[in-house]
Amino acid sequence: MRNILFVLWIFGVSLPVRAQILNSPDQNMTLAFALDKQGTPVYTLNYKDKEVIKSSKLGFEIVLSKLGVLDLTRNFTVISITTDSEDSVWNPVWGEEKEIRNHYNEMLVKLSNADRFMNIRFRLFDDGLGFRYEFPKQEKLYDFIVKEEITEFNLAGDHNAFWIPGDYETNEYVYLTTKISEIAVNRERAITRIKTQVPIDGAVVQTPFMMKSDDGLYINIHEAALVDYPAMHLSVDINDWKLCSHLVPDVWGGKGDIYTPAKTPWRTIIVSDDARHILASKLILNLNEPCRFEDVSWIKPIKYIGVWWEMFVGKGTWNYTDDTHIKLSVTDYSKLKPNTTHSANTANVKRYIDFAAKHGFEQVLVEGWNIGWEDWGGKVRTDLFDFVTPYPDFNVKELQQYAADKGVKVMMHHETGASVANYERRLDDAFRFMKEHGYNAVKTGYVGWIRPKGEHHDGQWMVNHYIHVANTAAKYKIMVNSHEAVRPTGLHRTYPNWLAQESARGTEFEAMAGLPPEHTTILPFTRLMGGPMDYTPGILQTIFSYHSPKKTKQAGTTLVKQLAYYVTIYSPLQMAADLPETYERFTDVFQFIKDVAVDWDHTYILEAEPGDYITISRKAKGKNEWFIGGITDENARMANITFDYLPVGKQYIATIYEDSKTAHWKTNPMSYQVRKVLVTHKSNLKQYLAPGGGVAISIKEVSDKTEIKGLKRL
Amino acid sequence: MRNILFVLWIFGVSLPVRAQILNSPDQNMTLAFALDKQGTPVYTLNYKDKEVIKSSKLGFEIVLSKLGVLDLTRNFTVISITTDSEDSVWNPVWGEEKEIRNHYNEMLVKLSNADRFMNIRFRLFDDGLGFRYEFPKQEKLYDFIVKEEITEFNLAGDHNAFWIPGDYETNEYVYLTTKISEIAVNRERAITRIKTQVPIDGAVVQTPFMMKSDDGLYINIHEAALVDYPAMHLSVDINDWKLCSHLVPDVWGGKGDIYTPAKTPWRTIIVSDDARHILASKLILNLNEPCRFEDVSWIKPIKYIGVWWEMFVGKGTWNYTDDTHIKLSVTDYSKLKPNTTHSANTANVKRYIDFAAKHGFEQVLVEGWNIGWEDWGGKVRTDLFDFVTPYPDFNVKELQQYAADKGVKVMMHHETGASVANYERRLDDAFRFMKEHGYNAVKTGYVGWIRPKGEHHDGQWMVNHYIHVANTAAKYKIMVNSHEAVRPTGLHRTYPNWLAQESARGTEFEAMAGLPPEHTTILPFTRLMGGPMDYTPGILQTIFSYHSPKKTKQAGTTLVKQLAYYVTIYSPLQMAADLPETYERFTDVFQFIKDVAVDWDHTYILEAEPGDYITISRKAKGKNEWFIGGITDENARMANITFDYLPVGKQYIATIYEDSKTAHWKTNPMSYQVRKVLVTHKSNLKQYLAPGGGVAISIKEVSDKTEIKGLKRL
Repeated sequence: MRNILFVLWIFGVSLPVRAQILNSPDQNMTLAFALDKQGTPVYTLNYKDKEVIKSSKLGFEIVLSKLGVLDLTRNFTVISITTDSEDSVWNPVWGEEKEIRNHYNEMLVKLSNADRFMNIRFRLFDDGLGFRYEFPKQEKLYDFIVKEEITEFNLAGDHNAFWIPGDYETNEYVYLTTKISEIAVNRERAITRIKTQVPIDGAVVQTPFMMKSDDGLYINIHEAALVDYPAMHLSVDINDWKLCSHLVPDVWGGKGDIYTPAKTPWRTIIVSDDARHILASKLILNLNEPCRFEDVSWIKPIKYIGVWWEMFVGKGTWNYTDDTHIKLSVTDYSKLKPNTTHSANTANVKRYIDFAAKHGFEQVLVEGWNIGWEDWGGKVRTDLFDFVTPYPDFNVKELQQYAADKGVKVMMHHETGASVANYERRLDDAFRFMKEHGYNAVKTGYVGWIRPKGEHHDGQWMVNHYIHVANTAAKYKIMVNSHEAVRPTGLHRTYPNWLAQESARGTEFEAMAGLPPEHTTILPFTRLMGGPMDYTPGILQTIFSYHSPKKTKQAGTTLVKQLAYYVTIYSPLQMAADLPETYERFTDVFQFIKDVAVDWDHTYILEAEPGDYITISRKAKGKNEWFIGGITDENARMANITFDYLPVGKQYIATIYEDSKTAHWKTNPMSYQVRKVLVTHKSNLKQYLAPGGGVAISIKEVSDKTEIKGLKRL
Repeated sequence: MRNILFVLWIFGVSLPVRAQILNSPDQNMTLAFALDKQGTPVYTLNYKDKEVIKSSKLGFEIVLSKLGVLDLTRNFTVISITTDSEDSVWNPVWGEEKEIRNHYNEMLVKLSNADRFMNIRFRLFDDGLGFRYEFPKQEKLYDFIVKEEITEFNLAGDHNAFWIPGDYETNEYVYLTTKISEIAVNRERAITRIKTQVPIDGAVVQTPFMMKSDDGLYINIHEAALVDYPAMHLSVDINDWKLCSHLVPDVWGGKGDIYTPAKTPWRTIIVSDDARHILASKLILNLNEPCRFEDVSWIKPIKYIGVWWEMFVGKGTWNYTDDTHIKLSVTDYSKLKPNTTHSANTANVKRYIDFAAKHGFEQVLVEGWNIGWEDWGGKVRTDLFDFVTPYPDFNVKELQQYAADKGVKVMMHHETGASVANYERRLDDAFRFMKEHGYNAVKTGYVGWIRPKGEHHDGQWMVNHYIHVANTAAKYKIMVNSHEAVRPTGLHRTYPNWLAQESARGTEFEAMAGLPPEHTTILPFTRLMGGPMDYTPGILQTIFSYHSPKKTKQAGTTLVKQLAYYVTIYSPLQMAADLPETYERFTDVFQFIKDVAVDWDHTYILEAEPGDYITISRKAKGKNEWFIGGITDENARMANITFDYLPVGKQYIATIYEDSKTAHWKTNPMSYQVRKVLVTHKSNLKQYLAPGGGVAISIKEVSDKTEIKGLKRL
């Protein structure tokens, strides 16, 4: 039903005047839109009669090529306001749910500003609001540059916030938890000055930006469907608790090149008084466009191991030789002296393939297989990798055959060094090389300063690049796992071959600057709101050497918490990141990693509090198997795990992987036990989690009565 | 023979001290190299005891990533000086000569600057000097940014110069002829403020830079083998007549990213006391690397017509509709209203194919065949053309078949709008599309502001792009004709599929800002020194309408001069640019365009004076046919045409296409006559050329005695 309202707009003195109201389907959320007396579009958002967003401005400053700056924040008039609604379900190619309901009420506001036109489309769901700007085809707005998008999020209080500082290049920060008013003074503390960080000045935070109000509202601000537009950061007014969109500039300082007809990404505000509903929200996915591909039969979730962690722990190197000054298609590697530490050699990769085949992993990631790593990391070099030339000790064809014989695939690695124009030039050749050699998935990397010079990881040009890669990969039926790319905004609905991204601190930071125990209790409320993360969990040897046997490092988790990550950190692409030899030493707990699914029918968020704990249960896709992960921050806790989602009247074997009573992430991280119990839909488990610890549970149907002999019923 | 001299270097007070001398093979040219007392490398160049280059500095200022600016202009010491020589011949795939002699003496100067190393390699030919900098592989110079190259050309006098002003984006200027001392005051006069011009401040000129000294020396400064380096302009010290290299910066102001081992392009100084030797020089080609391709059988010179001039004279349009706001893969052109003026429609292209087949042209260029032209020309849009989607009225498959049946090929057109990253993304698809549809040659275009933003047409990134296109095209056996690219530096030796370039004002300017009659008497001494130009001559209807029948324009030539261009403006790719209906009206003179060769065994520069006149005769490749072109500037003249290169003892029919006695480029341009005479190797022709006029002569063997009946012997 299409309900068109033509509203006679009356300008008043208070703000907002003659607001147009839209309610969510369940009536809990209320959006109001109005023009204020300056003709500025403003909106408010309420949840169960609590203010979420106070009157906040919407608009732009733009630059027109001959006319200069044009103010699109005032002097608007309303042409029309129409409402619409949607209630449908769709099935993702893979995901946390096999079916997703898309249920919202919509308000489309058509505005004019003299002879220029701008629409604002609001979609109000039960769990939040999405809105975007649309510029219809029009004579007086053909192409323009965004000088600044003025989208305000005027908050109702000095909420607790979970945030990382603004940075156009990276999201690889530890999250801080402070009041909004304390963001500026804590900014320096957030910066660890690793090489890839280029924090920007001022009180600016990145999205997804998570908050909790004193009266118990959970609020998450992010964006959906970031396409052909720069990523949005948020400038923070620490006194008025007002956020404003802060777009990533291009090399000339512009904030987006727009040609009409055009639309911005959706600005999203997810709200609930129950933190679990934030994690369960599908609002961002629903605001993305449906899958672009007709044939998706080639897209499959992947569990994999990799020639990767051994380089971090000092057992090997990416580079093949200690020689440098390498030139592509000039340097003859066969004449260089090998360094004997090169990990991606044929024999070693075969060892990984054997291990993957033995334990049921689909793929083996191999980093450092291709020439160029010797000179990696400079600011200047552009022609560093060609993505098609293996090191002399990496026999592509031999490994292709070997892997195929074992039913395993090798996962490609394309580290671009952020020399993106070089990558684009070589992209077709690189993908053709992959297809010719049996690869169907690639991990991409963007470490360093973007070239074309002056562009940023999160700018419009790069945003388009990542999508270009996903799109081009799809032509070759290749799946993509991007690292150091702009954080996700639900585009995996549209491009489901873009399986996962990094775009946050993952396991590699256990070996570098470190990860505090609370890190992964915040990630699902922030970074993961946009899409799956290739976190690469599974470090069972949580105390390890780092680059040299003398220097040891330690993960910020217990061993068991690493298992829980396979459930709490959702991804259709999950790595078992530790060394094969480690897993051979821990066959009991390794069994959980082998068993755990990577695609799901249903997800049940059992407990959640950002920064403190998360407990999630998921049903494996197409199987009567459930997997539970629970984690806590630096504090021990008793998790309350329910099973009421299990089919009624059946009993199941639950294998519980738990921290021992003496376990502690810092002092005794690898102390664990494994026990089996029987559970039904009525069961209830009070489960101890050690400080920095977790729990992992696999639940299987009883196939044979002898299995349950001696098992206690929960 | 390798003659190695280890020289004990003694620092003196005068400059240069203890110069190391190198002579050209014919002993006419003398290079001296020395270090001055500051340890600065300096050189001088003499020709027949006349000073060409007075003591001039060589060196760099560079930026090292952690150390900052490093001065590589002083404090050098000599490690070694070695000499070498070469005398060989090679055969270009196509060219003005079927065999080219490479004959030079070489001096390699190895220098150190504390613990950093730089070499200078000089090659002295009979017709000039080439030298380049080489940075060997070394520990303390891995990668760096050129802050400025300090290569001086300290001239011996206030020469007459033929020049266009510095501009990082375009070479599309009219040449000015002034004293060097007058360059600054005439700069404004050189600028016509067309949209593509972005002249840079100060007394800066572009290369090839042509000079004539008061005592009759002709000097040309340019560069050879411009690869992975920005193009060189020349800063002019108008008081001291000193030129200094001025490189095109990147977006950060850097003048080249270098990683060792590395070498710069060759800096070239071609010198003679006979202007004809400048035009005959093969020095720049000799300094380029040999052909990179093993199989060159697919590379063929091309004579072509095109759906092109009709758009200039207002008979058609590139765009298909008057609608705008086109979006690739969104806009449905079949729903847009055609404008009825679109030239690249199937029926019209068939008419051109018919004409090409009838008159023996290999190809038909079609511009405006692909979607996107409606919104062309903005600064902002990047995703403007996809290079694979034809307009609804251009039937690719039908035309492929039609052209194939007639033995003709359609020439592809890729206008990028300078959105180069977009082009690179689509390059493989575009070339695959070409191969699938029978195309083997593409005209590329780069009109507009380069995106990646902030890069320049002549900067290092774009220099690499053009080569990338040539290289990628070669993979598909495609020939390239680039417009608006950086001016050539002899790279067509290395990439012979890169047939020709524009990179100067060609025929299109007859329809736009105009071309003075002297323009083409200067071009061969400037722009053409680097390589062939797709000038697109052959406008026989020299007075024509321009975009509307009411407005007429006029070429700066007589009709006959347009014929002469096929010989005086060398290119393996020659267009007959006028309308088919025009050629049908001038079948007598059109015969010359049909007859003239596009590849040559030998070239004879008969007369030449920059800015005044040029007369050239060439022998067709593998045929006993010769073609002569003679042109003059705005003054009438009597050309003195000799035939002593014809085989002795034979007589030939010469068809002379000449200006009538009353012809004049301005007042009576289309008045001509055609006559036939008999010539032998002893013949001599005093030929009248009208103001702004020319002469064209074809010479064929007598095949049948009846042909010569009634012909006068010259």
